[in-house]
Amino acid sequence: MYGLIGKMRALPGKRDELIDLLLDTTGALPGCLSYLIARDPADTTAIWVTEVWTDRESHKASLSMPQVQEAITRARPMIAGFEFQIETEPVGGFGLPAA
Amino acid sequence: MYGLIGKMRALPGKRDELIDLLLDTTGALPGCLSYLIARDPADTTAIWVTEVWTDRESHKASLSMPQVQEAITRARPMIAGFEFQIETEPVGGFGLPAA
Repeated sequence: MYGLIGKMRALPGKRDELIDLLLDTTGALPGCLSYLIARDPADTTAIWVTEVWTDRESHKASLSMPQVQEAITRARPMIAGFEFQIETEPVGGFGLPAA
Repeated sequence: MYGLIGKMRALPGKRDELIDLLLDTTGALPGCLSYLIARDPADTTAIWVTEVWTDRESHKASLSMPQVQEAITRARPMIAGFEFQIETEPVGGFGLPAA
């Protein structure tokens, strides 16, 4: 499995709109096993995203899909920056589809 | 919902054993919606855990459950420290049980 944990920063006042866009875009992307979106309660502009994919290629391929491309285009004007992002190797846990 | 994202550090050579213990303990804890465990590919001692609970109280209550207490007792000698932990407010995404 391939994973990402990242902290995204919205422009002031844009976090909820950006979250709604992320919620609309996730789900049913090939190879996506989990995509968790969370507000940072200590930082009114920050969004944490934890992603699990079957493999790195699935994640990369998703970025070229029309609906993801469209979402990126709509999201970009609301994003102030990416403060933190790391790649992970998910090993399991609770909340992933059965293998 | 209530969330946590944390980076735990195992003692050298103990990461796999610690991960196995975490994998054995998770699942079927009341109020736990997601508990994702990942290795850090850039750091051979680090483990990332992303948790989603129905609420803060469920997480807190889990820490008193016998199987969690037992796991904490077994895990403690393998843990070097907690490098990073933040609380989050999960809002949704893909991979959570339907509400």
